Formats: sequence, C-alpha cells, structure tokens
Amino acid sequence: MPQLTLDLANGIINAAFGAAAKARMKPLSVAVLDAGGHLIAFQKQDGSSMLRFEIASGKAYGALAVGMGSRWLSNTAVERPHFVQGLSAVSGGRIVPVPGGVLARTADGDLIGAVGITGDTSDNDEACAVAGIEAAGFVADAG
Amino acid sequence: MPQLTLDLANGIINAAFGAAAKARMKPLSVAVLDAGGHLIAFQKQDGSSMLRFEIASGKAYGALAVGMGSRWLSNTAVERPHFVQGLSAVSGGRIVPVPGGVLARTADGDLIGAVGITGDTSDNDEACAVAGIEAAGFVADAG
Amino acid sequence: MPQLTLDLANGIINAAFGAAAKARMKPLSVAVLDAGGHLIAFQKQDGSSMLRFEIASGKAYGALAVGMGSRWLSNTAVERPHFVQGLSAVSGGRIVPVPGGVLARTADGDLIGAVGITGDTSDNDEACAVAGIEAAGFVADAG
Amino acid sequence: MPQLTLDLANGIINAAFGAAAKARMKPLSVAVLDAGGHLIAFQKQDGSSMLRFEIASGKAYGALAVGMGSRWLSNTAVERPHFVQGLSAVSGGRIVPVPGGVLARTADGDLIGAVGITGDTSDNDEACAVAGIEAAGFVADAG
Repeated sequence: MPQLTLDLANGIINAAFGAAAKARMKPLSVAVLDAGGHLIAFQKQDGSSMLRFEIASGKAYGALAVGMGSRWLSNTAVERPHFVQGLSAVSGGRIVPVPGGVLARTADGDLIGAVGITGDTSDNDEACAVAGIEAAGFVADAG
Repeated sequence: MPQLTLDLANGIINAAFGAAAKARMKPLSVAVLDAGGHLIAFQKQDGSSMLRFEIASGKAYGALAVGMGSRWLSNTAVERPHFVQGLSAVSGGRIVPVPGGVLARTADGDLIGAVGITGDTSDNDEACAVAGIEAAGFVADAG
Repeated sequence: MPQLTLDLANGIINAAFGAAAKARMKPLSVAVLDAGGHLIAFQKQDGSSMLRFEIASGKAYGALAVGMGSRWLSNTAVERPHFVQGLSAVSGGRIVPVPGGVLARTADGDLIGAVGITGDTSDNDEACAVAGIEAAGFVADAG
Repeated sequence: MPQLTLDLANGIINAAFGAAAKARMKPLSVAVLDAGGHLIAFQKQDGSSMLRFEIASGKAYGALAVGMGSRWLSNTAVERPHFVQGLSAVSGGRIVPVPGGVLARTADGDLIGAVGITGDTSDNDEACAVAGIEAAGFVADAG
C-alpha cells in the first residue's frame, strides 16, 4: 500500500499553496495528518492569524474521526448538533466541523491520511485541499 | 515595529476606565494581550463579578485566534454555531464570542495585541476597548 | 473587614516593582488574586518570558489552596511529592509549588487574597511579594 | 525587527535535516514556533514514531515559557522537579523538559521564536536545532 511520506505531504502543501496563489486567496495554513491522526507536516503562510494550526488540524482530525470529509460534519452539525458536540467532546476537543478537511485515499480506496486547510472561505479551503491531494497522486474524499 | 509595552498596556486600561467613567458604565474588567495571546496587564474594578478575568481575556483571545474583532465571532456564532463551538474546543475553551474583544494594530496594519473588556453591555465594552487602543496611539480593529 | 480593592492591588504591584528596581532584579510579573482565587490585577514587565502570567498566578493560587505561602508547597513537594501532585491535579493544574506566592492578611489575621511573583530567583520573587503586601498595609504570610 | 517568516522557518527545518543527514542521525521531527508559542511549520521524517510532533513542539514551547533553552528545564527537572511539574501543569501539559528546544534570537537579542527537535539523542536533537537556527541567520540560545 502506498504510504503518505514526508515528501508527498510536502508536495500536497506546495500544490495547495499553488492553487491558492493562482486564485489570489488569503494566506492559508495546511496540515497533513496520517491515517492515525498524527501530524506529518504543517505550514502557515505569513499574515495568518494566531490559531490557524489548531483550526487546520481540527478539520483534518474531524474528517478522520468519522471517515468522511469535514463537509459532512458541517452538514451534520446543522441537522444534529448534539452528535457533533458529543463527537467533539469525546475527541478531547480536537474537531472543527466546517469544510476544508479532506480525506486522502489510494486508487483502491485505502485511507492514507487527511488534509486540513484554513484561511480563506471554507469552500476555497476545501478546493485547495482537493487540489493538493490530487497533485500528489491520491484520491480526494471531501465528504 | 512598535511594541505593546507594559506602559502602553496600562495606558490602554486607564483610558478605557476613563471612557467608562465618563459614560457612567458599570464596573469593567480589562485584559491586554500581546499578539501571541499572552497576558501583559489586567485590572478588575471593584464590584465586578467572579469570572470577569476569564471573560475579558476570552474576548481578546478569540479576536486574536481568527484575526478579527470578537464582534465577528459573535455574528458567526449565530450563523454557523458549529464553527465557533469547534474553534472554542481547539482553543482549549479559551474563547468568549461576543463583542468587546478588539485587535490593536499599528498605523501600518501590523498586529501588536488585543484588548478584551467586560462588565457593561457588549457594545459599551467594545467602545471602551476602542477608546483605550486609540488613546495609546494604535488603530482599533473591532471586526 | 478591609477589602482588597483594585487600588490596593495596584499599590501592591507598584511597591513590588519598586522593591525589585531597588535591588536591580530581572523583569517581574505580579498577579494579585482575591481570597477566592480570582484575578484582580496583573502586570508583566517588558522583557519577561511567555508563560509568566501562568507561573505568577500559579504560585498565588497554590498559596490560597492550602492557606499557606507557596514556600510551604515547595518544601512539601520535596518531602511528600505525591501530595503536591495530587493537589495540582484536583486544582485542574493551576498550581506552581515554589516560593513567590504569599498570602495577604489583615492585622486580625483575616485572609483577603494572595500575591504571586515570578521573574527573578524564587527567594527574590517572594521578598518582593512581601514588600508589596506590607506597603499596602496588610500582613504578609509567606508560609 | 526581523520576523520569522514561513520561508525562514522552512529554511531552518531543511538545514536541521541537512545536519542530521551528514551525521547519519535517526529520523527527526522539527517544529518551528513563533515567539508566542504558535506553530509556523513542522516536518516529521519517515520512520518517526507516533507522538513526535507533540514532543518537538513541547521542547520549543517549554523554552519559550521560561525564556531559556529546554536544556535549562532538563537540569531544573532534576534539581527541582516540582517546579517543572508545576510549569507543565499551568501550561496545560504542553512542555517536554529535555534538551532539543532552542530559542531563536536576532543579533540584537530580540526573541523571534523557538525550534524543537526530537528523534535522535537529546544532545544531537539540540545540535541540529542550533544548526538550523544559525543557517537562517539568527542566534541560537540553547540555555
């Protein structure tokens, strides 16, 4: 099974930054987590606000928690807020349930990690996560 | 780049108290945080209730977290409560999303800290934070 | 019973800073808590390191927790470390058991609050807390 | 005052990895924090164990907390374990008191951030942090 190496994680971040620059987005923060929810790589662009690491990794962590992109968590938070609140609580407060957390899968569907992005609109954050994952040769699962 | 020294922080607090006295407001609590979210100075006027330090610093911390005044967090908490709940969770429960947390910037727009005030109405709290920041020669960004 | 007003708390901080300046100490951070462990006033001198508020208030909070100056906690941490570890745990991790946290009492022995100082040696921190409390007309109880 | 930009942070990480490769060290994890303790960049080399991000950032966070390299915390943890335990508690459990957390200062002595490294011996981790900071043109303060 392909692994999410540091080289690939850095490639995801660079591709996400490239997509953001092309669309003239605000400064982004990008976290790449392995399938166990542990950080492989992170970069925060100049001009980002204070808590962007926690937000970016919270989106990715939330996606891994339920095996779906954080867009699903965002929708669920509207329909069944108590479920997402409970999920946040049992995670130790590690989840940010808004779009921008996207799962990375192999062509066979195996989960290898997740990417969380914050800084622009949630939709734009998510689009950059998808661009980064696909540039690294994986399949993006945004939920 | 100008720094937010203790002298300036004390000046912000005194100017905020002065604005409150002039408008006959209730007793205020004022927290001044540096750009990294760490406390420089705090004062709680006699007659304030128990948890005013936590509320004042929670407004300022929230403003720094997202790079906008806590009024933005207050509006977002109505429109997308799950985002603010997630932000609160990944901050370790350090955010109070109501007006009264205001960013302090230099004339060039550089962020140097934030002021959080509580005790009167949120609008009045915010007005005193703005008055304090401007009295110290900085630009107030209430979001 | 005399109260620990904001004016008195500010006086304690100024007297502590004065004692430190006279002895050419390093930059200090001074927290003044009421008898319930809640912050009344805090000031951090320029050049202090990041977590000085947490350390200063942790000394004062610890003193209030057991009704003795934090020097007693420091001695107890050597003799019975498990007691201080348990105390820290049940406090929610709010205690720093080293000298520099001093109780403030009235002439009649009534407890009105505590002062915590950090920045120089623990002995010097404690001496400044005592100086501040006495300058405000209270009795310092360093444990 | 010079800022610790993302470009400089990435340069620190690459130089630290270069020093480690030259000395044939084990896989390293490198965290670069700003002066307020917030993550700018992180990379974990392939083959590292699970909690390396928390360890690397815990060394850097501890150095910033007290304004000295984490080697000072390591020595203090032997001499006065209760102080370091209290510091860890009031930090919310964010400190790893072993060598490998090094402050980055400008030529004028201004603090701009800290680097934390883990993966090889603590002495080697620290040497790579120093090498990274110096390669970026800053002064390394290992405490």
